[in-house]
Amino acid sequence: MGKVSIAIIHYPVLDKQGDVVATSLNNLELHDVARSCMTYGVEMCYIVTPLPKQREIAEKLISHWTEGYGIRYNPDRAEALHKISMAHEIDEVVTKLRAQGNPVLIGTSSRGKGAPIGDAEMRTWIEEDERPFLILFGTGWGLPPEVTARCNRMLLPVKGKGVYNHLSLRVAIGIILDRLLGERGESR
Amino acid sequence: MGKVSIAIIHYPVLDKQGDVVATSLNNLELHDVARSCMTYGVEMCYIVTPLPKQREIAEKLISHWTEGYGIRYNPDRAEALHKISMAHEIDEVVTKLRAQGNPVLIGTSSRGKGAPIGDAEMRTWIEEDERPFLILFGTGWGLPPEVTARCNRMLLPVKGKGVYNHLSLRVAIGIILDRLLGERGESR
Repeated sequence: MGKVSIAIIHYPVLDKQGDVVATSLNNLELHDVARSCMTYGVEMCYIVTPLPKQREIAEKLISHWTEGYGIRYNPDRAEALHKISMAHEIDEVVTKLRAQGNPVLIGTSSRGKGAPIGDAEMRTWIEEDERPFLILFGTGWGLPPEVTARCNRMLLPVKGKGVYNHLSLRVAIGIILDRLLGERGESR
Repeated sequence: MGKVSIAIIHYPVLDKQGDVVATSLNNLELHDVARSCMTYGVEMCYIVTPLPKQREIAEKLISHWTEGYGIRYNPDRAEALHKISMAHEIDEVVTKLRAQGNPVLIGTSSRGKGAPIGDAEMRTWIEEDERPFLILFGTGWGLPPEVTARCNRMLLPVKGKGVYNHLSLRVAIGIILDRLLGERGESR
């Protein structure tokens, strides 16, 4: 089974107009995603941003909860935040992962592009491949073509009912991890 | 197929010590949950709190996004927030739902209690029953015994890998809706 990491991309991503921009981080994103990563046994969650001020904010938040007062107040939260790692750019993450083998890059999108892979096939792939997997999530209006072009495959968009398709990124990450790594229980 | 609504309970819920308390709302909860409800075709999301100040905050936020500036800035968000309705107590929601038939109450918990029902069985039940379903989610440390005792069944807790089980409520709601109402796509 391949180890799965995820990357939340704050740059480069698209804005509403389709231009490439950098987005800002938010605190809840870090907590929610860290807890989802812990729950689904994700190896590491990389927050990718080249902006020094943004990295500073994230590192301050992480150290608040993993050291000093925060760790006493809420140890579960501290434990989860150890799953968060900052990175300047996607290449930095890819280089780190190479220590475990040639990483498989999986892109995500709320619009179906190219020939996306379904959850069941992706689950099997993760189970059978020993290479590290990196699932990329774009903030803002999603990953730009320069990033999706680097991905080995794109994941099929999450579909609910009907055409409305605007899940928050935090929630979408949880749902995708559940689909790929979660356990389905039987009634007792 | 039964229409599914959800209720996010802010009172009565348990705190860390197991006492019954009222918790406060947060803005992101409303946005994220509204978007998940839209995506999965949930009939209505009831926010249950008896505190007037809390209701006022929520109503202000909803009208900001569904009227005036907000609706022009982000129409998808406005559309989603129409899925949010405030209620004083659980009984108020149950009474409203009775217009569509005798509601089935399904409780959720991150700890497995009683004889919980699995996702597959729950999916089939929703598909085959014409009654309205109400899935209850407790904020804080979860639903108190007085509420779970009223539920027809408890849903099996979401399980990832290992023992860590502290998903954020927003994310857990998305995952549960996906398990019960989402469509699974095949690779193309």
